[in-house]
Amino acid sequence: MTDFSQTRALFDLPAGVTYLDGNSLGPLPRATAARVAQTVQDEWGAHLISAWNTCGWMAKPRALGDRIGALIGAEPGHTVIGDTLSIKVFQALAAALKLIPDRRVILSDTGNFPTDLYMAEGLLKLLPEGYELRTVAPEDVASAITEEVAVMMITEVDYRTGRRHDMQALTQLAHDKGALTIWDLAHSAGAFPVHLADCGADFAVGCTYKYLNAGPGAPAFIYVAPKHAAEAEPALAGWLGHKAPFAFDLGYTAGDGIDRMRVGTPPVIQMAALEAALDIWETVDLDALRARSLELADRFIAKVEATTDLALATPRAPRDRGSQVSFRHPEGYAIMQALIARGVIGDFRAPDILRFGITPLYLSETEIDHAAEVLADILATNAWNAPEYKERKAVT
Amino acid sequence: MTDFSQTRALFDLPAGVTYLDGNSLGPLPRATAARVAQTVQDEWGAHLISAWNTCGWMAKPRALGDRIGALIGAEPGHTVIGDTLSIKVFQALAAALKLIPDRRVILSDTGNFPTDLYMAEGLLKLLPEGYELRTVAPEDVASAITEEVAVMMITEVDYRTGRRHDMQALTQLAHDKGALTIWDLAHSAGAFPVHLADCGADFAVGCTYKYLNAGPGAPAFIYVAPKHAAEAEPALAGWLGHKAPFAFDLGYTAGDGIDRMRVGTPPVIQMAALEAALDIWETVDLDALRARSLELADRFIAKVEATTDLALATPRAPRDRGSQVSFRHPEGYAIMQALIARGVIGDFRAPDILRFGITPLYLSETEIDHAAEVLADILATNAWNAPEYKERKAVT
Repeated sequence: MTDFSQTRALFDLPAGVTYLDGNSLGPLPRATAARVAQTVQDEWGAHLISAWNTCGWMAKPRALGDRIGALIGAEPGHTVIGDTLSIKVFQALAAALKLIPDRRVILSDTGNFPTDLYMAEGLLKLLPEGYELRTVAPEDVASAITEEVAVMMITEVDYRTGRRHDMQALTQLAHDKGALTIWDLAHSAGAFPVHLADCGADFAVGCTYKYLNAGPGAPAFIYVAPKHAAEAEPALAGWLGHKAPFAFDLGYTAGDGIDRMRVGTPPVIQMAALEAALDIWETVDLDALRARSLELADRFIAKVEATTDLALATPRAPRDRGSQVSFRHPEGYAIMQALIARGVIGDFRAPDILRFGITPLYLSETEIDHAAEVLADILATNAWNAPEYKERKAVT
Repeated sequence: MTDFSQTRALFDLPAGVTYLDGNSLGPLPRATAARVAQTVQDEWGAHLISAWNTCGWMAKPRALGDRIGALIGAEPGHTVIGDTLSIKVFQALAAALKLIPDRRVILSDTGNFPTDLYMAEGLLKLLPEGYELRTVAPEDVASAITEEVAVMMITEVDYRTGRRHDMQALTQLAHDKGALTIWDLAHSAGAFPVHLADCGADFAVGCTYKYLNAGPGAPAFIYVAPKHAAEAEPALAGWLGHKAPFAFDLGYTAGDGIDRMRVGTPPVIQMAALEAALDIWETVDLDALRARSLELADRFIAKVEATTDLALATPRAPRDRGSQVSFRHPEGYAIMQALIARGVIGDFRAPDILRFGITPLYLSETEIDHAAEVLADILATNAWNAPEYKERKAVT
């Protein structure tokens, strides 16, 4: 059983900061700097080119993939890391469409993270005419799964509201209609237990710099279900996905299974940070994490609703949400800037969403209460109504 | 004028090693570990999510792109870093083909690095039927540039032999026939001066972990000539290539110019290593580097030819080679293992190529002579003919 009063010590958080933005960029694990330094100095510096073998760099994308796979309910050997989430979306979608050659519709929803939709748009411009990206409201996804749909590609948890789709039910519905599924787990992996294999998901993708805490620009991951492993065709046919990368054949032969979803040279230094982050995850009971996440989220919702008139944007039912709490306010941008100025870090998403990531590994009741109190004070005193908070800056 | 007797001190090379594999993975610059640690601890650790703005992370792909652009003769504002070279090849090729919609032939050569050919193969499977990847021998490229050719996509320097194409002449030939050019600069950037703008190159791509010394898994770069900047369509339409990434529009609008070749979240920690590596390059006179590279290469060739019967695989004329020297021997693999065992690090490429990267920033005459002497001794004594050298291991 994970003791969440102890896990905070595994992170290096600045004093005076209440960090509720781990759903955007997780904080620095204490072990990461040394692990990265080791890779830079003792591996690259000392072993040079031979480190690809002697330090196991070449094998790491698979090993790290499996460690993530364990967090998302994947069968061992079917997850690999690399590239960015956008690239992994492209890979999954291109492969899925080829598996259903007689259908032409990609179904997604307006709650998807935009880059997923953009990557689909880009892919459609390459493909022969006739393909269509059909984007419906999140609540209409189930009814939009028809026999025209080749692939349902959705993000499980809405990046703005925290609304969570029912993976089991939607995957079943899609399969009933002969469609495949791609699940974007950007806001799921490390947020709560995911059960890819149990749900029968066909493809999944995600990033590791949010709840997983692997650092800015950390590599993404892709999962291909065992039933598709031998047939999924890699559109991004990079040399490290080749069956024999170091034979340097002129023609491409896809590697076995998930290996073919590797593309180019893996980001060794970022992998070191991912490795340190995953060391923490090996000690975490994900069911306990989920229970704790809901406990903290409910506490935050109750406090904020008791002390402000902010409108809850996140579904109230626990099963319908991920691990973030969002509120709406027309002056959300300025309110968030005022919060940040007082050390409570959440973020803002246009047009009116205040987002707060609930991350039990390093958040306690005290901080949840503090965040709610500062928020209430800012609203009660109109402290947000100052020019320095209202002026829009570039946001991330 | 660069003093190459001084630049070696900028690198952290293990004692007893003569490193002739900087054309595969450059060594660790002394400043890199601290720069990486700073990004991990002082930027990510201390600034958390706000570092995207306060530490300038979001702007770095363009800034680093321009610093590389200065090394390859690109106009400022037309180079950006990110992803891997394989991905950048895909982007360049997809964009180039769309610019010449009435042609269907991609011309490449058998001296291209295989991943470039694989990525083209993968792209062709997405595109409507009728496209063709035509791969000719390197010496036949010029005559194969016909009016059928949409895009000539070649690597300037052959990764095995070091043979260098004439960028100026081939670009001109391609343009004369109405074709576009994509130059892969993997073995050019940091190896000798490149003059993209002067040559009128349309697209260029490259990696930064070889001669540029940015570390294992360092990001790649892409250049799009100003004349194509507004028309080149991004097939990998990621959110950071969007005109307004943080507006989170549901539809994609390409960013201005080279910005649209950004895809996903940039690899911040790898960028720190790239930054430290580029600090060195700002002090280097590339014409002096080239002169020094040829001087060391000629010295190596002369010594090896005087003391062994190895067959030179690299063209003899300086204008026809990059910054590596390759020899052929049927037992090349075992010979290279024997060399490595004695601290002389080059590498082997099937079927029979011994490669030696000539990198004046950290190699001197003494080391060139030493490498040649060890090589001669291994051949004279048949020291390579031992089971531990002949047994094939995974190679990189």
